[in-house]
Amino acid sequence: MSDAAEFRAVATAAREASAELAPLPRAVKDAALRAIADALVARSAELVEANAADVARAREGGLSEAMIDRLRLDPERVEKIAQAVLEIADLPDPVGEVVRGGTLPNGLELRQVRVPLGVVGIIYEGRPNVTVDAAALCLKSGNATLLRGSSSAYSSNVALVGVMRDALAGTGVPADAVQLVPGLTRESVKHLMRARGLVDVLIPRGGASLINSVVEESTVPVIETGVGNCHVYVDADADVPLAVEILLNAKAQRPSVCNAAETVLVHADVAAEFLPRALAALAEAGVTVHGDERVAAHGQVVAATEDDYYTEYLSLDLAAAVVDSLDDAVAHIRKYGSAHTEAIVTRSQRAARRFVALVDSAAVAVNASTRFTDGGEFGFGAEIGISTQKLHARGPMGLPELTSTKWIYVGDGHLRTSAGTVIAPVAD
Amino acid sequence: MSDAAEFRAVATAAREASAELAPLPRAVKDAALRAIADALVARSAELVEANAADVARAREGGLSEAMIDRLRLDPERVEKIAQAVLEIADLPDPVGEVVRGGTLPNGLELRQVRVPLGVVGIIYEGRPNVTVDAAALCLKSGNATLLRGSSSAYSSNVALVGVMRDALAGTGVPADAVQLVPGLTRESVKHLMRARGLVDVLIPRGGASLINSVVEESTVPVIETGVGNCHVYVDADADVPLAVEILLNAKAQRPSVCNAAETVLVHADVAAEFLPRALAALAEAGVTVHGDERVAAHGQVVAATEDDYYTEYLSLDLAAAVVDSLDDAVAHIRKYGSAHTEAIVTRSQRAARRFVALVDSAAVAVNASTRFTDGGEFGFGAEIGISTQKLHARGPMGLPELTSTKWIYVGDGHLRTSAGTVIAPVAD
Repeated sequence: MSDAAEFRAVATAAREASAELAPLPRAVKDAALRAIADALVARSAELVEANAADVARAREGGLSEAMIDRLRLDPERVEKIAQAVLEIADLPDPVGEVVRGGTLPNGLELRQVRVPLGVVGIIYEGRPNVTVDAAALCLKSGNATLLRGSSSAYSSNVALVGVMRDALAGTGVPADAVQLVPGLTRESVKHLMRARGLVDVLIPRGGASLINSVVEESTVPVIETGVGNCHVYVDADADVPLAVEILLNAKAQRPSVCNAAETVLVHADVAAEFLPRALAALAEAGVTVHGDERVAAHGQVVAATEDDYYTEYLSLDLAAAVVDSLDDAVAHIRKYGSAHTEAIVTRSQRAARRFVALVDSAAVAVNASTRFTDGGEFGFGAEIGISTQKLHARGPMGLPELTSTKWIYVGDGHLRTSAGTVIAPVAD
Repeated sequence: MSDAAEFRAVATAAREASAELAPLPRAVKDAALRAIADALVARSAELVEANAADVARAREGGLSEAMIDRLRLDPERVEKIAQAVLEIADLPDPVGEVVRGGTLPNGLELRQVRVPLGVVGIIYEGRPNVTVDAAALCLKSGNATLLRGSSSAYSSNVALVGVMRDALAGTGVPADAVQLVPGLTRESVKHLMRARGLVDVLIPRGGASLINSVVEESTVPVIETGVGNCHVYVDADADVPLAVEILLNAKAQRPSVCNAAETVLVHADVAAEFLPRALAALAEAGVTVHGDERVAAHGQVVAATEDDYYTEYLSLDLAAAVVDSLDDAVAHIRKYGSAHTEAIVTRSQRAARRFVALVDSAAVAVNASTRFTDGGEFGFGAEIGISTQKLHARGPMGLPELTSTKWIYVGDGHLRTSAGTVIAPVAD
């Protein structure tokens, strides 16, 4: 079978499974998730062994110890992955929720009800836990999943998907609701991106280049996630010690994540007070500041290039600039940002209101660290990613963001005429 | 200036206008809409004259009288267009609506608020009224619009957009919030479809081939609209006279619209009772039935080819087939349908529930004509189109569907640590 035909067979099976899965009640889906969690723990040794092959290959390939650590599975980590599946089982089922509803003036009962999206394709670079997490979130929301993980985790992913599929036997959820995209070539990703009609949505999770290539090439609708060039704006009216703490937390508490700050913008009126303290604190935290000349006037920085302001470092680096007004800060963010999360630190209610109104990002924080833009922090219980696009979902995506809706209207023989609604007479 | 550069200039101006327009309060937007309505009526003669050029060209080009009638503007039609703008002004403003909100356990105030999408591109084949209708709906929801109408209405569209832009002077809404895509070539549509980063969403309104080409080529997120291969399923338990009336209404009341029925599926158990009556009534209404052999057994029909079942006729034609079960009807709809609207006619609560659960379409009607899938009928007041995709919006799209959301969180110096939230101390 050719690659294309093999992909088509897998995607068609996923589509058929999604039609079976969609109307299943919560109890059946939760029992299936619990069966998956049990099976992961029971077959932990098998999973760790499959993972060892990936780890060995990664080591041969010269991957850094940090990356190898991200890849590694041990019984404790498998246990945690299973635990996360149980937590997803405990979340409310979004499917069937009546979003809007009522009786129209003509007596038609109308309601808009949440339904699964259908088949969700996930393209990701992350750790093997994403394989299980994504499949479990999709299953809970009634969707079949086509998973395309990174080649470095291929053996682990094959083993994880195998265990999940085995666990589904007899649960009422078809095993084909959880599948790996066959093959590891660039072509196999292309098949997924061109599978309009078979796949309902693609969620790429990874770096900017992965996401851009998916957006460029996909005919399947895409939800962009995760690129976070987040800003902290220190307003003229900022409480300076508070601003230093918020910046430090946003930048350095966990620099590798998308909601970490990458740029600080400082109002000129507060620069002389804020920057010396901030630069000292950042230096102490091991942060390299890439600043413009007006920042450099207040301490030791690396000279910033324009590229620095576009960069999502995901490291202990921070771009910095002095701006002359709140509006200039907003203009900078519009130009260089990725519309993920921007924070303002200010005592001024007026400044806060204006910043919130003008900044066009998925999340805007006032006197809080950017690090709170997160499904867990927002109380969603779980998160499939953070959308930085405006269509369908924006910001952290929980289970409801993995659904669409369907309109249902019920009448007694309602007909539409140019003179308004007429009810057809009934025979009996 | 090259075509591409000219497009870029227009789209960039729209983007800048959208940033100015987004935070404007409802009163400013409504006043601008009223100014547009007034200007359309005041400059009616000018509009009718510009339209006459399109009509003359259409006549030379041999367009049918029906198509010419769709294109034609007269003072009465201009008045109606202006009236529709006033009705849009009277609708509630979706922008600023708090969709969800509350205080998190750590004290952060969190809310999700509706915001405009930004720049909305509309590609359409319709009548000149769409130009004003789309611009007004976008303006009301805080979006700038890039309009790309059909070349047959170009003079009319230039005049209409000119009047609207003039009317915006002094209202606070920038004129560049309403713009025509420059040029009439195929290239100019391509520029619009590749304008990711400048245009936030594209809404194609027209036939299947237009929509498919936009979906294939666009890197800007697309909302598919309008292709309606709608089905009426007559269940074994149907009230036969009611089923005949519903089918007749769904097919023949206005066959040219997307929510008209294109296929009837009849359960075998009711075929002998239903089909002779239905075929007679359809014949009387001037409907040509394209039926399979089992339909032909009950009256005179044109033999259906498989293509008939895929076809959105938009005319007095109807495909027909006999099926052996409700599940077979659902399978037929999944295979051949466009996921717009499907109706079941049945007295059985169980059959209605199963049909509603299994049919995966934007709207499902029970004992009602498919013609009710409509923003006006649903009480939205106005409609930008009917989405047949699952992402972002599904079914009739009103003003809220022209918005995205933004998350806002407000704290007192909230920091995220591995041990939970910490509040930074304030200086003063």
